[in-house]
Amino acid sequence: MQTVTVSASQAYPVHIGGGLLAQAGALAAGMTPSRTCAVITDSTVERLYAPLVCRSLQEAGFAVCLYAFPAGEQSKNLETYSKILNFLAQNKLTRSDCVAALGGGVVGDMAGFAAATYQRGVDYIQIPTTFLAASDSSVGGKTAVDLPSGKNLVGAFHQPEMVLCDTDAFRTLPEEAFADGVAETVKHGLIADQSFFHTLMAGDIRRDIDAVVRRNVEIKASIVREDELEHGRRKLLNFGHTLGHAIEKCSGYAVTHGRAVAVGMVLATRAAERMGHSPAGTLHALLEACRRFGLPTESPYAPSELYAAAVSDKKRDGGHIDVVVLEEIGRAKTVRLDMEGLRAFTEAAF
Amino acid sequence: MQTVTVSASQAYPVHIGGGLLAQAGALAAGMTPSRTCAVITDSTVERLYAPLVCRSLQEAGFAVCLYAFPAGEQSKNLETYSKILNFLAQNKLTRSDCVAALGGGVVGDMAGFAAATYQRGVDYIQIPTTFLAASDSSVGGKTAVDLPSGKNLVGAFHQPEMVLCDTDAFRTLPEEAFADGVAETVKHGLIADQSFFHTLMAGDIRRDIDAVVRRNVEIKASIVREDELEHGRRKLLNFGHTLGHAIEKCSGYAVTHGRAVAVGMVLATRAAERMGHSPAGTLHALLEACRRFGLPTESPYAPSELYAAAVSDKKRDGGHIDVVVLEEIGRAKTVRLDMEGLRAFTEAAF
Repeated sequence: MQTVTVSASQAYPVHIGGGLLAQAGALAAGMTPSRTCAVITDSTVERLYAPLVCRSLQEAGFAVCLYAFPAGEQSKNLETYSKILNFLAQNKLTRSDCVAALGGGVVGDMAGFAAATYQRGVDYIQIPTTFLAASDSSVGGKTAVDLPSGKNLVGAFHQPEMVLCDTDAFRTLPEEAFADGVAETVKHGLIADQSFFHTLMAGDIRRDIDAVVRRNVEIKASIVREDELEHGRRKLLNFGHTLGHAIEKCSGYAVTHGRAVAVGMVLATRAAERMGHSPAGTLHALLEACRRFGLPTESPYAPSELYAAAVSDKKRDGGHIDVVVLEEIGRAKTVRLDMEGLRAFTEAAF
Repeated sequence: MQTVTVSASQAYPVHIGGGLLAQAGALAAGMTPSRTCAVITDSTVERLYAPLVCRSLQEAGFAVCLYAFPAGEQSKNLETYSKILNFLAQNKLTRSDCVAALGGGVVGDMAGFAAATYQRGVDYIQIPTTFLAASDSSVGGKTAVDLPSGKNLVGAFHQPEMVLCDTDAFRTLPEEAFADGVAETVKHGLIADQSFFHTLMAGDIRRDIDAVVRRNVEIKASIVREDELEHGRRKLLNFGHTLGHAIEKCSGYAVTHGRAVAVGMVLATRAAERMGHSPAGTLHALLEACRRFGLPTESPYAPSELYAAAVSDKKRDGGHIDVVVLEEIGRAKTVRLDMEGLRAFTEAAF
């Protein structure tokens, strides 16, 4: 087991290694004075891992209650949030009890937001079961729910007490789900660590999963330590996300997050090269990485469609939007665009 | 106009005086860079004050949108919360826009929680239109929504950018609504300021409303500055609330908050005197104040009913509950009770 410490408004450990789900109880017992733990999961993960995790928590002395909602992004809404809160209240969870988010990004975001707001905030632990959630949403304390008007429009910053990344669970993911995590991993190399990018290109991510997750978490932790509330540097993590979210939205969320971000990074980098923000060759390196890792590089939607979808994106900030571009492989910056600028940027991406 | 500064995780002004609703726009313009302001109110306050406040905001350069939900505690639920969030999203509010909570405690709690969580937090200003909200919930950043299982079970700490207390609005309240504010005012004297308590007993609260609101806010500000997240001293503000909430709950919220707190303070003080926490004569002074201000002193419910309702109260903390007792008029402390202790305390209150 390896451990990375995230130093945000409170410091907490991210444990990484094989077989950690079975140790969830023992590890959690050291982190929280809670006596009751509500495990929140979805219908898919419930079947795979809930018995193991619940038993481990019980053996460590926790009283455990379990709530599972239907798997999928369509559950990420205020109705599911309301059901989770009522479940916590009916099970008489108190301010000193805790929540465990067991699952992928949707579970982590939803259970995290419930933990952030139930009785104005209770402890929670993140147990991501996908490579994507481990590399992306489980670290850093962002929690969220979708509204009909858009993704992640509601949420809170609420740091977990602990994150548990069982890499055995990631290694056994189907290829498509695994690739979503790969896209965010490549993003971390591109925005923050050139040598990590080259290591990825030379290695085998499934084989080296422990080391890869660790480096992902280190990069994310370093950014969150500097800018927990996303006023500045944390925005760099949105590389590929402005147009990526637009693609997800246009597809009715049929295109998965990682794949959409891969295309979003390609589009942003093509525009950035043309506009002189990124040096020549940056796009070529990125396209090579996408090819190597089986990630898509072409948008199924026209520039005008992506622009329309991006304009209503939540990162729009009083008539402006910050897009992230690469200054070189391993270093990124934000460029603030007005709506006309975003239109030109989107057109230059094709 | 008088101004008290609240120094919490961020410092903000509380303005107190007559005619301030008409100055809302000018005062808000100095406090936030927002260009759009969503005014959230209820059906009663909409009729009384929304036109005045919206016009004032527009004259100060804000684009204004207005949302009113049906007045009453029964609106304080996740369904109304969801409607407010969708309203904000449909009006394309961005992270740099702001929310104004115009109304009593329910509006302040709901609009505040929506502001705390929309896009993970936007600026908001509190414009309490009741003496109760000005003296109690509008200062200190506690926001909340009820669940079917209990009051205020969901919420967040989110400090406003500014609080605007137009005392003309309080002075014209009907007697019953005014008395709710009086109960919280008396509470502030009892827990924190003996001379304020004696001033109240000798004066006329309606006549002296500016000074009374000011002292209420100063007391609350001093407590919040020390303990924003209610780990310690802020709990003293719950004096009278453990059994008071139980009375509200037993009545299906037909008994108003201030009246219930008045009875709760009487019950807690009778028990505290009998158990030796409060000196003899404390109850007598409190009963005299209730008589003077037309506040009730008798519980319509038996000890066993109140105990059952209080046990499920959210302040229960892993098998314990903190009740507040007076060490003397003007000074309070918490006493931690287990469930048996709470039963004995409730029985000693009659």
